[in-house]
Amino acid sequence: MGTVILRPGHVQPVHAGHPWVYAQAVARVDGAPGAGDPVRVLDPHGNYLGSGFWSPKSAIPVRIVTRAPEERLDEAAILRRIERGANFRRAALDLPSSATDGYRLINAEGDDLPGLVVDVYGSVAVAQFRTAGMKRREEIIAAEIRRVSGAQTVIAAAAKVPAEGLADEERVLRGDPPDALIFRERGLEWRIPRSVTQKTGYYFDQRDNRASLEKWASGRVLDVYSFVGGMGLAAARGRADEVTCIDSSALAIATGAAVAEHNGLAAKVRFEKFDAKRRLPELVARGDRYDVVVLDPPKLAPTRKHFDSARRAYVQLNRLGAQLVARGGLLVTCSCSAAMRPSDFVRAVNEGVRAARRDAILVALGGQAPDHATPLAFSEGRYLKTLFLRVE
Amino acid sequence: MGTVILRPGHVQPVHAGHPWVYAQAVARVDGAPGAGDPVRVLDPHGNYLGSGFWSPKSAIPVRIVTRAPEERLDEAAILRRIERGANFRRAALDLPSSATDGYRLINAEGDDLPGLVVDVYGSVAVAQFRTAGMKRREEIIAAEIRRVSGAQTVIAAAAKVPAEGLADEERVLRGDPPDALIFRERGLEWRIPRSVTQKTGYYFDQRDNRASLEKWASGRVLDVYSFVGGMGLAAARGRADEVTCIDSSALAIATGAAVAEHNGLAAKVRFEKFDAKRRLPELVARGDRYDVVVLDPPKLAPTRKHFDSARRAYVQLNRLGAQLVARGGLLVTCSCSAAMRPSDFVRAVNEGVRAARRDAILVALGGQAPDHATPLAFSEGRYLKTLFLRVE
Repeated sequence: MGTVILRPGHVQPVHAGHPWVYAQAVARVDGAPGAGDPVRVLDPHGNYLGSGFWSPKSAIPVRIVTRAPEERLDEAAILRRIERGANFRRAALDLPSSATDGYRLINAEGDDLPGLVVDVYGSVAVAQFRTAGMKRREEIIAAEIRRVSGAQTVIAAAAKVPAEGLADEERVLRGDPPDALIFRERGLEWRIPRSVTQKTGYYFDQRDNRASLEKWASGRVLDVYSFVGGMGLAAARGRADEVTCIDSSALAIATGAAVAEHNGLAAKVRFEKFDAKRRLPELVARGDRYDVVVLDPPKLAPTRKHFDSARRAYVQLNRLGAQLVARGGLLVTCSCSAAMRPSDFVRAVNEGVRAARRDAILVALGGQAPDHATPLAFSEGRYLKTLFLRVE
Repeated sequence: MGTVILRPGHVQPVHAGHPWVYAQAVARVDGAPGAGDPVRVLDPHGNYLGSGFWSPKSAIPVRIVTRAPEERLDEAAILRRIERGANFRRAALDLPSSATDGYRLINAEGDDLPGLVVDVYGSVAVAQFRTAGMKRREEIIAAEIRRVSGAQTVIAAAAKVPAEGLADEERVLRGDPPDALIFRERGLEWRIPRSVTQKTGYYFDQRDNRASLEKWASGRVLDVYSFVGGMGLAAARGRADEVTCIDSSALAIATGAAVAEHNGLAAKVRFEKFDAKRRLPELVARGDRYDVVVLDPPKLAPTRKHFDSARRAYVQLNRLGAQLVARGGLLVTCSCSAAMRPSDFVRAVNEGVRAARRDAILVALGGQAPDHATPLAFSEGRYLKTLFLRVE
């Protein structure tokens, strides 16, 4: 088997449990492994650190799959992890459940399967193969996904990852291609056309935060960057009287409106096509106030490089959001950028709220749902922060 | 009214929303305020920053109560905040509730009432007066607590705060002195002798984390530093088969055992008097394994000064805890030290788990319950971290 020997001074993070081996950490590669072959990772003294699959052109040529020297990285090793992942979701989400049948089945590093993400939407599973190692094994992975989840259809999502040699269109690996993803979350029945979820998925990660909002929302609610309205519809199922969801995607809001109708919530929820950056200043200018404002923007800081501009955008967005919250109301503000750490985000939001001459009291700090668990040492995996703030 | 003028270079934290004015930040005090008198805080240019009560001998002589220049800090200002605090708890905890009637009514800075903490245990409220300003107004505060909470008895907890001139024994301000605190939490009926709670209270802050544990616990459970068994009893109400609670206080475990009996959980839960530091190595040595291990030690880092020794203690404790978790089991590990920030605690726990040659996957990161909300700018107030880890 191929062997990857690390440079002195680059061992500690891997030893401490971080799953990524960066290219600059690699001193030497023995045994001429091919893309997707299993390799062993050793420290400069030859001590075993872990094993993973080889991605020769990637900035992260190995992602650790096992730290047990005796474990062979064969197909059985992958199938064991998928089964373990399924067992964990069953316990953590109390599955099978008549209320919830949409969830993340496999979360890459969090399941010791870097390069593989699998979401289950009722009878359809959507898999993302993002490394050469996972892509090569997609057939047995698809079969195992079907076996453990009961999904009839397994789809491989489109994947353009040049460093991994991947340039794949979406393909159906098992079963019949669906027009829409049909699933339930805490009793709410979703139907989302594939054209909406192809790029984004649905964001199961906010499930528990939507449950909190459902519990706490009341009065008038504004859901900004609503996408298909997950937050807004949760508020409407709670004690909200009147919910406005704003998103710039006509397809997303049409989907949300249909879901509202289907679940008997249409009388309470309105979807409006607006660019949030333009719309929020208008609402502020006309003096609108809401009992609850939700801000769930797309990823503003994809990498540390974007940190400063993202930070400014969060400050500005939260300033506008705070201005729109009635005194004593709730501001629910989210960041899904891993590069923006929780303490950074708290500071940026506080700066925005103070710029609005308001005070924020932190009621709860939510993260991603348990099916999105990640290694404790892997801070890159803990990307979601959802602050629930009482704004005075 | 007395006026406190800050030094240049010491304005920013207060301006950004932090409620504490440190003694070293004060340039000058005008108007000779007495202990407990309202004072206005100004920046070096005379701009208004906020108002609070004067504590001349404290390292924090002013804690901001209002940032509205026009608001008078009279008795009505305090009563307004207590009423607002009660309204917030009603909404956040869905009160009144037949399942839960124990909660924090007032959380000091989180309710713009620094120096005042009030916990309600069914028909008894326990107030802590920790500043001269609050102490002076205890009579009207006691009356208002009774009015908004419906508590028949209001107790002032013992307070020894030399810098505030406080050296008070516990006193009953309203109603009859109770022998025990009797209350419900999510349907579990508690009865805790006053002798147990006099020093510690009961820790309502872990309410939501206990609910999560109840959902996720199964099999054999070990609750270390159990106090009266809040975590262990939650596990027993869930799917746990056998729960062992360990604490060094004979009184605490006797209380927990009686509560288990009263709630029909005695067959599942055992309380044992042990010092965790001695007991855990014994359990490790004899090869014990549990499906769930809970570690909820007392505050190990009361201040930043204790940080290094506290960090070592957390590493060691979590190493032992991880060794006791069966593969794929749950480690629930807590820190209530504000000086140990979430990222510090994550690193210390990870170090302990890795020293045990195990891997930890973060399933959820819980904090203090919503009735313990604090200002977003006040990181000192966000002390509780409860990690739910799958340990492989």
